Amino acid sequence: MQIDEIRKREKALKIINQKIKNDQKNNLIDLTGLTGGFEVNSDEMKLLETYVGPAVFDEKIQEVGKKHLSGEKILPVNRTTAGIVATILTLVAPKTEIIHFLPKKPAHPSIPRTAKLVKADYVEYTDINEIKINPKKTSLVIITGTTMDYEVIDVTDFKQIIKKAKEFNVPVFVDDASGARLRRSIYDQPTAIDMGANLAVTSTDKLMDGPRGGLMAGDKKLIDQIKLTVNQYGLEAQAPLVAGMVNALKAYNPERIRTAFKQKDELYIKLNEANLNPEKTPTGFMFKKEDIKKEILKRDIQTSMSDDILAITYSMLLLKNFNIITIPALGMPEASRTIRIDWSSKDSNKISMDYLINSIVETFNMLETICKNNSFEKIVY
Amino acid sequence: MQIDEIRKREKALKIINQKIKNDQKNNLIDLTGLTGGFEVNSDEMKLLETYVGPAVFDEKIQEVGKKHLSGEKILPVNRTTAGIVATILTLVAPKTEIIHFLPKKPAHPSIPRTAKLVKADYVEYTDINEIKINPKKTSLVIITGTTMDYEVIDVTDFKQIIKKAKEFNVPVFVDDASGARLRRSIYDQPTAIDMGANLAVTSTDKLMDGPRGGLMAGDKKLIDQIKLTVNQYGLEAQAPLVAGMVNALKAYNPERIRTAFKQKDELYIKLNEANLNPEKTPTGFMFKKEDIKKEILKRDIQTSMSDDILAITYSMLLLKNFNIITIPALGMPEASRTIRIDWSSKDSNKISMDYLINSIVETFNMLETICKNNSFEKIVY
Repeated sequence: MQIDEIRKREKALKIINQKIKNDQKNNLIDLTGLTGGFEVNSDEMKLLETYVGPAVFDEKIQEVGKKHLSGEKILPVNRTTAGIVATILTLVAPKTEIIHFLPKKPAHPSIPRTAKLVKADYVEYTDINEIKINPKKTSLVIITGTTMDYEVIDVTDFKQIIKKAKEFNVPVFVDDASGARLRRSIYDQPTAIDMGANLAVTSTDKLMDGPRGGLMAGDKKLIDQIKLTVNQYGLEAQAPLVAGMVNALKAYNPERIRTAFKQKDELYIKLNEANLNPEKTPTGFMFKKEDIKKEILKRDIQTSMSDDILAITYSMLLLKNFNIITIPALGMPEASRTIRIDWSSKDSNKISMDYLINSIVETFNMLETICKNNSFEKIVY
Repeated sequence: MQIDEIRKREKALKIINQKIKNDQKNNLIDLTGLTGGFEVNSDEMKLLETYVGPAVFDEKIQEVGKKHLSGEKILPVNRTTAGIVATILTLVAPKTEIIHFLPKKPAHPSIPRTAKLVKADYVEYTDINEIKINPKKTSLVIITGTTMDYEVIDVTDFKQIIKKAKEFNVPVFVDDASGARLRRSIYDQPTAIDMGANLAVTSTDKLMDGPRGGLMAGDKKLIDQIKLTVNQYGLEAQAPLVAGMVNALKAYNPERIRTAFKQKDELYIKLNEANLNPEKTPTGFMFKKEDIKKEILKRDIQTSMSDDILAITYSMLLLKNFNIITIPALGMPEASRTIRIDWSSKDSNKISMDYLINSIVETFNMLETICKNNSFEKIVY
């Protein structure tokens, strides 16, 4: 069974839409930690025109953006992915090489994909001792601050890679999608820029209540070059998005993340008592796709289905039956297949821990039945 | 004098921002025809979260989008340029060829730029009799419905190119940025899709009151393929944008365009009386960059400045002194350098014809002084 990424996402969106039509919007529980949000007041709305909007909000985002990420200049883009694409298009010539260090594989697919688009070589490292910068060939060093599964980079590694890259004058770009908050609020790490990176990008909907969007920061000269590319390819954040980002950055408070960091142990114990073995994350827990399979195999069930399908099916069932939103059903193509529950999500205050644990357990029981009947197709599409 | 596209745009945005800070927002007069706007009510605002927003508004835009453009499926993107980029990335393989027919050169720069990115050949035609489709090599035929300067394609040409492309099974993509309204409301032409095109894209801020954004329509199968690319590269329209598009499409009324079409002759006569010679457009008038130079040369003034600088300077002066927004000062990199006044713009009801004429005349006088003093630098940056 091949995965049709578009159809599966549309199915999940349809389930949500149906619930909203049935007046159940408030029952939807988004525990992705990527809920986003869009707060713009009516005075601000009046300013959101094509040429007037950028004039007002481009200035405002400079201030709040620098406070969040440091850097000489801020550039709001349509998504973190859009920032990655624009940076590679701008700084990486064909036949040069991108070096990518990340705490754990896999990398976000937009990085190797865009490397391929510009015909550059692409090398990934998870061990800092193996990194080889080739002064004649390396055009960009990318560091992932925190992976899609919330693995956090070691701060000593972080600084050392930047030092190495600087020795050879290679620019360093940090994909700090959730890291700009996770690394900082829980692990007390400095901003990427303050550690010496030339460029960083973060997602304004990850672990904060902004709209889906990307916020870039860095050296003025590089940001100006990237801004040109961003405008040329239609990757910039439009005025309404920028307005939402400004307000979300102003409202951002790391306390919610820190509380979840403390409470996650209790969730973990309750799951163990129910005979389930998730992995801990800084602000919750997760079942990676292979762990979902393991839970099924524990029950002496056989299935020929791939880990991907199992994860998507689980996510779809959790949404349909318990209103809980996780990424595998709704994510963009090739987004993480991990069922990750982020207890720092705003919506966690809509439910009790017991509701969550019961939903997780019951959904595994449902998945068991689906495996027995091999009835995946009608759940996923 | 080289043009720094980023700095000149930032200068123009700064002028606007200063006026807004001085409480002159209502005195700003956007006559670009690209004003955009963003109307979203408070109930809708509550739905604008990362996963909930798309569920609601992706469905709504299917309906209003199809009514506007026809087609089996609608795809909202971040800008018309983003739709062009995604279409070429999806459908054009290296070493194949893009054929582009447009009523008049130059083409929108995003088309040749993306052709180059994917290593495809790119050929432009303005004469239908010269078009040569090469069945082994042509991977995409692009038609520009209306140029940046509002030159409109002949409907017979339009149909004939589509017919030719269909004979060879080459998909046809129409860049109908303003055309989807201009061609239809004034020239009574059918939608691109109804004439047989496979794909079309329009700008939701051109000649209608939506946010800057792109609305694509076309064959379901192709749209699904392009949607995957759009998601992979961060080119999609985010939920707040889609909500604004839905409302703008619902509110769209071609009557304003038709009224301007009738009133433009009066403007033209008044300008002639002031000894100025613009070109007519369907809904106003324009001075192309070479025409601005001509007006200066008529006054026996010599200048070594390029046409581009003259147009940008004129646009900057018109904004600063008369609050009138035109594209050369504020446009994206390589946007049109034409001073185009679109009398169908919503803001035209803020001023009289005489205010406009006087502003146009006085700005030429100011430009004359700038030429004499060669003091461009401080106006443009």
